[in-house]
Amino acid sequence: MTTRRHLLRGAVGTAALATVGAAGTGTGTGTAQAAQAAPLTPTVGTAGTASTALDIGILLYDGYSLLDPTGPAEILSRLPGATVTMIAQRRGPVLTDTRDVAVMADRCIADIDHLDVLLVPGAGNRGTVAAMENQELLRWIRRIDRHSQWTTSVCTGSLVLAAAGLLDGRQATTYWASADYLRTHYDVTYLPERYVRSGKIITAAGVSAGLDMALYLASLIAGDSTAKAIQLAVEYDPHPPFDAGNAAKADPELKQQALRLLAESQEVTPKR
Amino acid sequence: MTTRRHLLRGAVGTAALATVGAAGTGTGTGTAQAAQAAPLTPTVGTAGTASTALDIGILLYDGYSLLDPTGPAEILSRLPGATVTMIAQRRGPVLTDTRDVAVMADRCIADIDHLDVLLVPGAGNRGTVAAMENQELLRWIRRIDRHSQWTTSVCTGSLVLAAAGLLDGRQATTYWASADYLRTHYDVTYLPERYVRSGKIITAAGVSAGLDMALYLASLIAGDSTAKAIQLAVEYDPHPPFDAGNAAKADPELKQQALRLLAESQEVTPKR
Repeated sequence: MTTRRHLLRGAVGTAALATVGAAGTGTGTGTAQAAQAAPLTPTVGTAGTASTALDIGILLYDGYSLLDPTGPAEILSRLPGATVTMIAQRRGPVLTDTRDVAVMADRCIADIDHLDVLLVPGAGNRGTVAAMENQELLRWIRRIDRHSQWTTSVCTGSLVLAAAGLLDGRQATTYWASADYLRTHYDVTYLPERYVRSGKIITAAGVSAGLDMALYLASLIAGDSTAKAIQLAVEYDPHPPFDAGNAAKADPELKQQALRLLAESQEVTPKR
Repeated sequence: MTTRRHLLRGAVGTAALATVGAAGTGTGTGTAQAAQAAPLTPTVGTAGTASTALDIGILLYDGYSLLDPTGPAEILSRLPGATVTMIAQRRGPVLTDTRDVAVMADRCIADIDHLDVLLVPGAGNRGTVAAMENQELLRWIRRIDRHSQWTTSVCTGSLVLAAAGLLDGRQATTYWASADYLRTHYDVTYLPERYVRSGKIITAAGVSAGLDMALYLASLIAGDSTAKAIQLAVEYDPHPPFDAGNAAKADPELKQQALRLLAESQEVTPKR
């Protein structure tokens, strides 16, 4: 009876949720077996790159901002043939800047000597400075960049790329509050854009800009049609309730309030 | 020498990255001690709710979509006094729909009997159906909802709330491809909005809509000024390279391609 209800629910759910259903199978029992057995529509029909494995590595380091790696991961993981791997200096959970949340790093940098796409997220002040001073991390970033198809960053991740020497003489962007630092400490032309491409290096502005950068990168890797399909797949039709996200249009008070909230959320306090 | 370089770099980094710096300290040595000792600007000046602890719980269950919990977590964790806790049926890493990434659940549902804010993310078909049939999970959601200030969902998370009986007679939204299922299987009026509030329940549309919903929720909890500051803090000034995220404007082919990419990305295959 339980099984029967389960199967019926699964079938109904499949048709209605229309994900596995749309992939060409009418049944979805919620078991891995059923999914593996499902005759999936050839990806050739969608992007023509189904058989091409795409190794995407996202570097996690202590104190990163949660959305920096997870926004792009959500989008890039939908690319045909893509595998997203969370990588850190050591395997295991890596805490965000607020210390509330941890994403698992499944590989350590010593395990990884090649990636098609490298993404370096941003972090709070402490985490960014520590990464910029971490020579082992910077050496690994340079090594991966030597053979990567794309080397990318989100938010203050561009400061880490700059510290690794990868942005010399390039145009790049970063978190709005870090623009002066990037401009004054490195041979970089800062552009106040959502994302900036310079050769195979793409830098994104703060935190949420990683979503826009990832869609742009998806279009470069798999074409506009696939990128648009991914945008629809994650229903990215942004309508924030306010228009307050652009630092160029923000008054000094709002900027100070934003930076205070960031600093307070990163204050080291005992968590439940 | 190493220490001296570290301190100089840290101090420069702090001023430049301007986060800890903005909180009223001119030094940032990159150590937790320095941050703890930093005299922070009273939050009373920003939102007046500094002393109010805000317990935000996000329910993780097998096969959730990564951005559903992490987008809102990024935004809500910046609320004054907020603690974001990732919760699952059992503690430990919880895998996403693509099986590539896992977020740590620091608490199990048996540990949590009260939350100010509950957020239920969406998942792929298998994960959503399994959650809708998980009576222990549904009982816990009903129990938390009894005393929560806000009960919220992202994407197909609204189907889980509906399965828990929390959406009866309400207006709600969900993932575009799940709208018919929500409408036809529950006593719910579906609205094709980014987010829909019905009393203390707020449902968001697919995946990325959780960002817009979280900013709206932030404004309800801490006021427009704080919500706008958080939007600036995460530089949420969205400019995707395409305008393809609205299902109402998408042609049938793009919808099918989107659902194929989702299904293929969720295909159970051995990962590196």
